[in-house]
Amino acid sequence: MAPAEARLNSGELVEIPKGEVRYTLGPEHPPIASVVPGSRLRIETELNIGDVLHSTEDSFDASMVNLPFVNPVTGPIAVEGANTQHILVCEIEQIELVPPGFTALVPGFGPFVDWIRHRDFGVHSRVVDVRDGEVIWGERTRIPVRPMAGTIGTAPLLDSISTIDNGPHGGNMDVQEIEPGATLYLPIEVEGALFYVGDCHAVQGDGELCGIGAIEIRTHTSVRLDLSSRPEQMKWPRIETPDYIAAVASARPLEDAFRLAVEELVGWMISDYGFTVADAILLLGQVAEARCSQVVNPKYTYIAKLSKRYLG
Amino acid sequence: MAPAEARLNSGELVEIPKGEVRYTLGPEHPPIASVVPGSRLRIETELNIGDVLHSTEDSFDASMVNLPFVNPVTGPIAVEGANTQHILVCEIEQIELVPPGFTALVPGFGPFVDWIRHRDFGVHSRVVDVRDGEVIWGERTRIPVRPMAGTIGTAPLLDSISTIDNGPHGGNMDVQEIEPGATLYLPIEVEGALFYVGDCHAVQGDGELCGIGAIEIRTHTSVRLDLSSRPEQMKWPRIETPDYIAAVASARPLEDAFRLAVEELVGWMISDYGFTVADAILLLGQVAEARCSQVVNPKYTYIAKLSKRYLG
Amino acid sequence: MAPAEARLNSGELVEIPKGEVRYTLGPEHPPIASVVPGSRLRIETELNIGDVLHSTEDSFDASMVNLPFVNPVTGPIAVEGANTQHILVCEIEQIELVPPGFTALVPGFGPFVDWIRHRDFGVHSRVVDVRDGEVIWGERTRIPVRPMAGTIGTAPLLDSISTIDNGPHGGNMDVQEIEPGATLYLPIEVEGALFYVGDCHAVQGDGELCGIGAIEIRTHTSVRLDLSSRPEQMKWPRIETPDYIAAVASARPLEDAFRLAVEELVGWMISDYGFTVADAILLLGQVAEARCSQVVNPKYTYIAKLSKRYLG
Amino acid sequence: MAPAEARLNSGELVEIPKGEVRYTLGPEHPPIASVVPGSRLRIETELNIGDVLHSTEDSFDASMVNLPFVNPVTGPIAVEGANTQHILVCEIEQIELVPPGFTALVPGFGPFVDWIRHRDFGVHSRVVDVRDGEVIWGERTRIPVRPMAGTIGTAPLLDSISTIDNGPHGGNMDVQEIEPGATLYLPIEVEGALFYVGDCHAVQGDGELCGIGAIEIRTHTSVRLDLSSRPEQMKWPRIETPDYIAAVASARPLEDAFRLAVEELVGWMISDYGFTVADAILLLGQVAEARCSQVVNPKYTYIAKLSKRYLG
Repeated sequence: MAPAEARLNSGELVEIPKGEVRYTLGPEHPPIASVVPGSRLRIETELNIGDVLHSTEDSFDASMVNLPFVNPVTGPIAVEGANTQHILVCEIEQIELVPPGFTALVPGFGPFVDWIRHRDFGVHSRVVDVRDGEVIWGERTRIPVRPMAGTIGTAPLLDSISTIDNGPHGGNMDVQEIEPGATLYLPIEVEGALFYVGDCHAVQGDGELCGIGAIEIRTHTSVRLDLSSRPEQMKWPRIETPDYIAAVASARPLEDAFRLAVEELVGWMISDYGFTVADAILLLGQVAEARCSQVVNPKYTYIAKLSKRYLG
Repeated sequence: MAPAEARLNSGELVEIPKGEVRYTLGPEHPPIASVVPGSRLRIETELNIGDVLHSTEDSFDASMVNLPFVNPVTGPIAVEGANTQHILVCEIEQIELVPPGFTALVPGFGPFVDWIRHRDFGVHSRVVDVRDGEVIWGERTRIPVRPMAGTIGTAPLLDSISTIDNGPHGGNMDVQEIEPGATLYLPIEVEGALFYVGDCHAVQGDGELCGIGAIEIRTHTSVRLDLSSRPEQMKWPRIETPDYIAAVASARPLEDAFRLAVEELVGWMISDYGFTVADAILLLGQVAEARCSQVVNPKYTYIAKLSKRYLG
Repeated sequence: MAPAEARLNSGELVEIPKGEVRYTLGPEHPPIASVVPGSRLRIETELNIGDVLHSTEDSFDASMVNLPFVNPVTGPIAVEGANTQHILVCEIEQIELVPPGFTALVPGFGPFVDWIRHRDFGVHSRVVDVRDGEVIWGERTRIPVRPMAGTIGTAPLLDSISTIDNGPHGGNMDVQEIEPGATLYLPIEVEGALFYVGDCHAVQGDGELCGIGAIEIRTHTSVRLDLSSRPEQMKWPRIETPDYIAAVASARPLEDAFRLAVEELVGWMISDYGFTVADAILLLGQVAEARCSQVVNPKYTYIAKLSKRYLG
Repeated sequence: MAPAEARLNSGELVEIPKGEVRYTLGPEHPPIASVVPGSRLRIETELNIGDVLHSTEDSFDASMVNLPFVNPVTGPIAVEGANTQHILVCEIEQIELVPPGFTALVPGFGPFVDWIRHRDFGVHSRVVDVRDGEVIWGERTRIPVRPMAGTIGTAPLLDSISTIDNGPHGGNMDVQEIEPGATLYLPIEVEGALFYVGDCHAVQGDGELCGIGAIEIRTHTSVRLDLSSRPEQMKWPRIETPDYIAAVASARPLEDAFRLAVEELVGWMISDYGFTVADAILLLGQVAEARCSQVVNPKYTYIAKLSKRYLG
């Protein structure tokens, strides 16, 4: 990827091949592309365990998980002029799935293996086709797809964080709402923002419970990247659609992730929608929609949402 | 309440006035009624803070919260013949709301006051009317009602647990899915089951975040009580509708509630729907729907659901 | 136990046989004795699993654990004139051990079985003699005794709490510092205080890790009970010796127990020893001594201590 | 720092000036020195907030905390021949304190500010002299020093982790037992081990409660570095003195750190001292000594110790 081809015109959809994927992200990583605000990109993303499993004929093997070298992302992509006074506005336009997908349960990975009593289940997996908008999960089991980007974010200030981890910069949040039609707002910690994306899913349950817990899949993920001025209160990623506003936070224990997401949402309600603190809190008591998206990453992730019907 | 009028015929809807409400439940509490399996009851429930706030003209005052005497329930109601080999099958038929409702934010109650940085908000509340299927929350803010029973359960084995608390016996779970149309399955720990209900809500957000966090309201809650034989694996309350099966668990920290709810759901998938352990876990990785219903009670509550489309 | 023989003269050591032990405690339980403030009592305590294991020839069997009927206490003992304006001052004078003692590891009990990976260890136990100040643990392993009262407290306001549980009223705290020479200060929630003690240990490690994790043993525990006026700030049990002051709190998760114990200790430093808030906090940063005493009960317990060398 | 002066002879004490301190550590950072196994080093360490506060006349100011650039370490130092089949054996020989020291309470840092109710305390600090083995804390308050290394470890495999964080590689553990006379065993993840040390304390309380919670101080820390073959079971740092063996683990929530430290200690008892799993667990129930050393870093740290009197 030549930074030479960098100055993109807005509106034009530019291909970003995955190139040499990255397993960490920091301020010193050279960008694979540099784009002007407003650019539209179609980004190739690798499978979360890398260059294996190219056909439904292939079988998953635990040795394919080469820790800590998992969760590769495509990037970083610099946005010209971006600095810490901005936030990155990332509109998710489309996520095209490239089968096969797979899911796996591996001893030592995720809540089932750490939490649940049946201890000796060994390694189990499914390598599946995806067609006609459905995951072909079993003989009679079909799951409608809901494509999403599992790992997406900007570079943190201090070099450099594993793509398995997450934080105010985004990262491995595994939030189902990061899907086509949503706009993701990301804090910027370094010049150029240094955007990246990977670890996409055809569909994921709440908690990503089986560890490698979604239907992991390669994609072409199309986004439009832009800049906006940073709200004073903003500390964590935010999501907006025509229907709701939402905040996403990652922490341990789980209560802390929940608290931080709600705190971020309250701040947003106050600064942009004229709520008093008390009214924001009282109303959320009745109408907050909140879920934990994953309990498998180093920090757990919570999303707290508010329907726009309550925003005036 | 005369136990004399106890032997009810199935099918007939019998009124249970709230009588002297209870703040704890245990095996030694005398039942206010004794009914045969299959009975249908219309149970009056008190406001969660007791005999105050009877009109939207009334104002909430923090002195109305007389800890630990909150969360009164109506009961216990004995089911004849019930023992620990049974579970209680409780069909929620209807929840009629008796306005006004109210919600409140009180220093020292709930996650906002314990968690959130804006510390000096003081006491805030809304006493609201409910009409035409909506909570009249503010001048322009209306919230569609979704009536639910916040506290519902059977008596624990060891006397006696505060109605503020919860556990395998049910109790103060504050789960929105315990609503008309749902069937709640409850473990039975003592002869007669000793059922009770109270703390109903017109509508509640996820987490019940503002502490006294739902629209708390008086109701007439109609249920049909029956017995079924106890599944060997069942340890926690379960919910079923035509659309899904779900398990509900309460614990601290929040991860533990999540884990226990999922564990219960996995057990149900294995025993009743022929899943292998591995397949149950793998599938939930993609299709589990799970939420924390409240983070305000002594133990937090999680519900884990599975759509019936994946059950065969 | 006849309340008739109740009016004790201060100073005289009065025998309290264990009588009918209790598994819960609440305000409505009739006292087995009523004593005047200043009374000295020698209280017989039962083994934590009840009337079994009377000789080192006896073997432990998991069926001896009859949940939830464990952790019997002797009491309640009313202190005349005690009310919520008082605290109970309980000087631990002596704990006489009555061998045999025992310890056990039982599937499903405690952190090792819940936490640790070696999953299939089954039931293991030791029934041991105690002589010459040592637990005769193994052929060459002797452990010096450090007798302590595991469960000790006053009655909570709302009836009634299992003796397995704990809280501001004390209960199953399993703190090694509740030992001869220590004075325990307990909040009083009901008229008469309703004191009780049981679940004594010959020696216990931090965390009580193996579940039934100490050397559990019968005792005669001698205490002197008195009343003092309640400090405004006091919410949790406190301990004092000539060497230190300490606060004890119980909660989940463990951070919360730690936080509450420190908060209580800071309050004590401010109210009784003239510290500013800032100085109390800064100093504890350097000299706090704090440990978790148990992670096996429904709420975990933390003790936070401050050497008296920093109080003058 | 010239790697030219690298090949050290064992036995000779070599000066390592702090040079350009680092705020992250990873496999790609060039070593400031390369030494043969058996080398003895006298390492200069910077104050945890960097090049400020050089006299007790200086005052702490919150602007001196330049997040995330705190907790500088001296290193990395390569040990020749070290690879992942080894562990690093680090004997702490001496920690010479270079006053002044300081401690501070800053809004938003640490448990007091996050946890405790008195919310508006603002910034407080003490810049203190250290002489005659005591911290001159206040007019009449003297605290005996107990010098320790707060941040010490090897490089993680995946580049690169903030020196504020911790993990199996060591890092910001803030364990008081990492003191002169102790031998620290560290897992090695990368060629050369890449050792570093910094963030030393004159004395620290359990929990490091006030956030910048110890007496932070510059030092010359003398260590002897050697290699040993890696025990199969070893996953976390271990400590040994003539009196005890101990394991140190870092995680959130705090229970998890406790569990992991105990798990590591059990593994050590089994592999090196002939315990069965059951006996190791049973014995720890009675004689484990365990404490949380800090609740202020991204992951909390627990140490679990066993007296050597039970090892032979």
